[in-house]
This record gives sequence, structure tokens and C-alpha cells, in this order.
Amino acid sequence: MYEVNRERVNALLMGLAKFTASEEGVTRLAYSPLDKEAQNWLLEQVEDLQLSIREDAVGNVFLRREGVDSALPPVGCGSHLDTVIHGGAYDGMCGVVGALEALYMLRDAELKRSIEVLIFRAEESSRFGFATMGSKLLTGAATVAKLSKGGKKGDISFEEALRQWGCDPARAADAILAPGAYASFSELHIEQGKVLEEKNIQIGIVHNIAAPTRFKIHLQGMADHSGATPMGMRRDALVAAAKLILAVNESAEDEKEHGTVGTVGVVEVEPGSINVVPGAVTLWVDVRGVEPASIKRTLENIQAEAENVAVTDRVGVRIEMLTADSPVPLDKTLALQTEGICKELVYSFLHMNSGAGHDSMHMAKIAPTTMVFIPCKGGISHNPAEFASLDDICRGITVLAHILQKEANK
Amino acid sequence: MYEVNRERVNALLMGLAKFTASEEGVTRLAYSPLDKEAQNWLLEQVEDLQLSIREDAVGNVFLRREGVDSALPPVGCGSHLDTVIHGGAYDGMCGVVGALEALYMLRDAELKRSIEVLIFRAEESSRFGFATMGSKLLTGAATVAKLSKGGKKGDISFEEALRQWGCDPARAADAILAPGAYASFSELHIEQGKVLEEKNIQIGIVHNIAAPTRFKIHLQGMADHSGATPMGMRRDALVAAAKLILAVNESAEDEKEHGTVGTVGVVEVEPGSINVVPGAVTLWVDVRGVEPASIKRTLENIQAEAENVAVTDRVGVRIEMLTADSPVPLDKTLALQTEGICKELVYSFLHMNSGAGHDSMHMAKIAPTTMVFIPCKGGISHNPAEFASLDDICRGITVLAHILQKEANK
Repeated sequence: MYEVNRERVNALLMGLAKFTASEEGVTRLAYSPLDKEAQNWLLEQVEDLQLSIREDAVGNVFLRREGVDSALPPVGCGSHLDTVIHGGAYDGMCGVVGALEALYMLRDAELKRSIEVLIFRAEESSRFGFATMGSKLLTGAATVAKLSKGGKKGDISFEEALRQWGCDPARAADAILAPGAYASFSELHIEQGKVLEEKNIQIGIVHNIAAPTRFKIHLQGMADHSGATPMGMRRDALVAAAKLILAVNESAEDEKEHGTVGTVGVVEVEPGSINVVPGAVTLWVDVRGVEPASIKRTLENIQAEAENVAVTDRVGVRIEMLTADSPVPLDKTLALQTEGICKELVYSFLHMNSGAGHDSMHMAKIAPTTMVFIPCKGGISHNPAEFASLDDICRGITVLAHILQKEANK
Repeated sequence: MYEVNRERVNALLMGLAKFTASEEGVTRLAYSPLDKEAQNWLLEQVEDLQLSIREDAVGNVFLRREGVDSALPPVGCGSHLDTVIHGGAYDGMCGVVGALEALYMLRDAELKRSIEVLIFRAEESSRFGFATMGSKLLTGAATVAKLSKGGKKGDISFEEALRQWGCDPARAADAILAPGAYASFSELHIEQGKVLEEKNIQIGIVHNIAAPTRFKIHLQGMADHSGATPMGMRRDALVAAAKLILAVNESAEDEKEHGTVGTVGVVEVEPGSINVVPGAVTLWVDVRGVEPASIKRTLENIQAEAENVAVTDRVGVRIEMLTADSPVPLDKTLALQTEGICKELVYSFLHMNSGAGHDSMHMAKIAPTTMVFIPCKGGISHNPAEFASLDDICRGITVLAHILQKEANK
């Protein structure tokens, strides 16, 4: 196996970052002309790999290096090229560039199975309101009709975007791959959290991808004059909401050992005036975990506290569910194999879970799937300040190359 | 004394309500052309009272009915005609119309002192950012320069508004009245709270006007990915803020017997996204009371909890003071006189405080001052749904007429 080529990795990542609609950070929305230009540029850079190129019915791209036995299910790897608005140069790109660099490293290796680098379309929800659209369509987890419901005012529809990309929405189902289509699937990704950085660990081996349960809590009290309404006569929706903000936090804290997290990220106060007792509040809550039982306990605790507050604070409380996805376990055997590779390479490693969603969630339904995390500075992602060091990226790529080599010879 | 004329009272209130810039509710901003048109219309309706009319250097209007001894300081009464945006037909107007109706009731009465009905300009802060501007200028509590700092983008300056009204801002100090200018001052007003309604009381006798202390609490934590950041690694500014929302409420609850109230009316969350741990939160807090010692204890408790949360939640906490006014005691002798009048009229009454600010706060500095409250439906004010029944209004006017008669004969 060749050594990782730091200069090429850096050149590909920095070259991709130039395809941006914003000066600050990288803005390259899914299915946009920039998305296509970036991909075309990248394919030109790696022409010497002489990969065969296939695009499916929804725009996912497959770059194939043939193995000795072309009839065997290939080994899959890859990630995405699209970004959020004012995102960074690493989320997604490390997985695509890393997979291509791994093919360079394996150029002279004899491999039984073929390897395919997948470029998933629309991993980010920034343009069409749904995340991991390409991998959802690829695995039959969603239809174009369903994914067309999240579009934004002023933008074209998802169906129209597909057509502009050169795809026929009516033929989207042709993209669906059956279980077994890949021998395995591996994705290299920045952690998007700060666990690796804070623990000073080089490689994260992902065992589960957390699923978000998202809901709104609507609290209905009574708006009153803040000066003229004595404390005993109030039905302050914000005071009740504060108790639920703490309940969300405490319910998740109680499940900390199981990796469950709970966050209130949005507070809407009506009327929102300094001299009016808040009459109505809406909290937006995100609970995630990898253990269904732990997520369930967390949600039940929040629900119980909501019912309690409704009585003690004399407010109406209504929970509106937005999404309730199931956590996705990744392949344990592949995780142990990665552990062995890290030991061999003398890289520090940590078995961990992913709080963020990834295309691998869907790939896990059709193939044994694993993810390799590398640290990112301050855990910052989806932000112009997103950064991963070239050292960390190259360590991640080296691990990925070893995984692919082992998988391709199974 | 004549009986109160219900039809005239109703006609004047409903007539004034027609001078509105909005279809819903009443919108008649201070110093606007509508403010002048409404006042001119009102003065036309009461021409038969043959009052002498004086306007001071900042637009406050004085309608005088001469007493037997014109040299004695007159008895003052009145309120304001301006409204908030989408306000009601009663806040302020009851006090002006009520004072004029009281003069009708006293038309044949022999009175030693003259009576002046004051129409204060700009009691509401909706246009120029400061409340009780006319009475502040009248009593020397503020200058035009100071009151010119609260203007809104897109509107003319307060100075320009004064000029358009026909006043010379440079001569504003001519409006200042010395202590003793009035023998006493009385203001009839809707409660703007629901204490009278809930206790089923007809007349509120006001002893103190609460002073608002307003401040912002700025909390600085760390914005992080809500999925990828374990509970133990967070510095969630909203969780810390929730503790302070409860601290404001509990600190005021502890002072309930002293009438102190505390409200968080505004919550600003940064970045305010369902998948990001809040990095920064700003709370807008309003604390009011009538006892300086109780207000002080409340503020100290909030401050102590803010310092505590800064440590326990590892967040930066900064308190930014906006205003810290002193509560205003009204005249006790006048309050007892009103109690006697209520007993005589067989009206139920309650000694109480005003949580809202009024022009009487400032008049109290130059004359013994009293306020008479009447119930308003649901305590709702500053809202199109503001409502006071004609029965309650006429009871309030009758009490006011008796107060003025007694005062004018002292």
C-alpha cells in the first residue's frame, strides 16, 4: 500500500472549497450548478485512477475500481459534496476525498472485490428540508414525492431540481439498491463534536448513529400587564416553559451513561414584550440517543413533567411530534476490525456513537456499515470555522484504506 | 350635583375611539395629527362648559372652570388621549372624559377654587420610546433633549414632532410648573389589571404607583451540535437562563405580600436552531414594586442567583440595567377622603397599588395626588379587547366629581 499523499488530499479539499456561493465558509447547496461543477472538477482531478463512472436515477454517483472478481458485490465507501449555507470544507468532503485517496493508496494492490466510491446527493437538509436524500432514495427509505414536501419558498421544487440535474423524477425508483448490493460500506467523517478533541484521541470508531426525536412543546398561559398583575394571579407561560427546559436537560442528564442528549434550541415567546407576562411559549426540543429504551425513558420523563407543570402552573401544554426516528446500529464486526487496524497503525482510538445523522444510517440497511471519525477543531461544524487538521484527515484516510483493502479481499 | 350623564359619557368615549389609524382597536399616537383631531373634536363637544383653554410650551392642554376665588391654586384632574398601537378606547380617555363629565355634574355647584382638566401629551411610550412625556416635561422630571433619544427609525424626531404640533422646543422649560401650582390632582383610570374584577370590587383607591426596574441578563455559553455534544460537555446558555427565569419568578413570589412583581417578558436565543445547543441567551426583566426595600431584596436575590448560575453552569452572566425608577407614594389623606366618598355612595372599594405607571407619578411631585381605578374586563389593556363597562366608568366619574367638589371647596 502506498503512503497517503498529503499534498493531493489538501489540494483536493481546498480545491473543492473554492466551489462556493458565499465568500465566508462554503455554501454549495445540493443539486445546484455549483454542486455539479465541484463534482466535475473532482472527477477531472482523479482521472488517472481510471474509474468507471455511473450516475443513478437520482444523481448519486458511483466511481468504480474493478477487482479481480467483478461479479462479487463490491465494497462501498464515500460521503457527500453538498454543504449547508455558510458551512465548512470538511463535512462530507473528507469522506469523498478520503475514499478517492484510499484508491490511490491501493492502486497497486491486488483486490478480489471491486471498490465503489459513492457520492451521495443532498446529505444536508439546507436546500430541500430533508437530510440524506440521496441515500434515502438509494435504499428505498423515501420517495421523491415525500422528499418534495420540504422545499423552500422562492426555490424550485425537488422534482424540478432533479430534472435540471438531468434526472427523470418518474424513474427515481430505478435508483433503489437491494440489500446485498455491497459487501460492506465505510464512511470517513469529521466527528462534528468535541469528544475526540477533548480526549485527545485520533480515531473514533462509530457503533451507533443516534436518531433525533424532535417535538414542539406549546404552552398556553395568559398574557397580562407585568406591572398590574400580582404574582398570585398569573399564568405565566414562560415560567412553566423554564421548568420544562430544565426537565429536558435533567431527563437527558439522567440518561447520560446511555449517551442520550436533550436540547431546547428554540424558544418562541408571545407577545414577547418586557411589560407583558408571557401568554404563550413554544419550545423546540431535540432528543437523541442510540438506545431506544433510554430515548423512551427520556421522552416519558419530559412528558410527565409537562403534565405536572400543566397542573401546577395552570397552563395548557401540548406536545407536537415532528420526527421520531430510530437509532441505527452499525456493524460490530467492522468496528472490531477497525480497532485492529488502529492498533496496527498505533493510532489512539475510541469506540463511540454519532450524535449527528449520516448517509451511513441508510446504507446500514443494505450492507454491513461502519464509520470512522476524525477530530474537528472545537467540535465546530456547519460553520465557516469548521476545521480538521491534515494530520488527522490523513490518519483517517489511512485507516479507511486499510478497511477497504481488508474488505475487498474477503 | 347633577347625576352622571351616561349617554354623554358613552358618546364622548365612542366618538374619541373613531380617531384611529388602525381598523382594529385604537391607534392614536402621541403628537400625531389624529391626536390633535381627537382633542379638537372633544373640545368642540364640551364647548357648552365654557372652559378657558390654555396650551403649554410642550402641548399639554389645560381646560379651566373658574372658581369663586380665582387666585387660589386650582384643583387639577385629567389624563391622556394618546394610545399605544392597537390599543383600546379606555386607557387615558376615561380620565379625560371623566374629568369633563365631572365638570358637567358640578356645573351648578358653587366652588371656591377653580378646576383644571389636564390633557397630558404622550403618556404612552409607543411613539417616542418614553412614557408620560407631557407630565415629565410639566414637572421638570425630564428635558426635551433627554426625551429625544428614544425615537424610532423612520419617524420624525420628538423635537420635530413638537414643532409640527406648534411648539418651540427651545421654550419647553416654560411648561414647568412649580410645586403648589395645584391644590391637588386626581386621575381616574382603568385598573389595567384584574384585581378589582376578580374580587368584584367597584372602586380602587390607589396608594402607591410601582416603579419599574428593568434590566437585561446576558448569558454566554457555547453553541454546539445538539446531537454530537454529550450532556457533560455542554455550556447551554438556555438551561442557565431557565434557572434565572425561575429565580426572577421566585424572588418576586417571596415578596408577594409587599406587592412586588417580577417578569421575564423577552427571551432571545442564539443561534435559535433546533439542532444547536444555545450559545447565548438574553432575558429582558421587569421588576416592580411600591416598597423600595422589597424591590431591593428582589433584585439582590436575582443577582445572587445569576452569580450562582455563572459558576454552576459555567456561563458568562452580565446584567445590563435599563431603568431603575423609584416607586411613588400618592396622598394618604386624599385616599381616605375617597374611602369616605365610596362609603357615602355605597360603592365597594379596595385600597390598592398601581403596577402600571401614570402621569400622576409626576404630578405627585408638585401636588397632593390621588388616583381612582375602575375595573376593566379580564385586566386587559393596551389591546383592542380593552373594555370597561359604562356602569363602572360612571361610578368612577361620580367618585371623581365628589373628590373635585370637596377639593374645590377646601
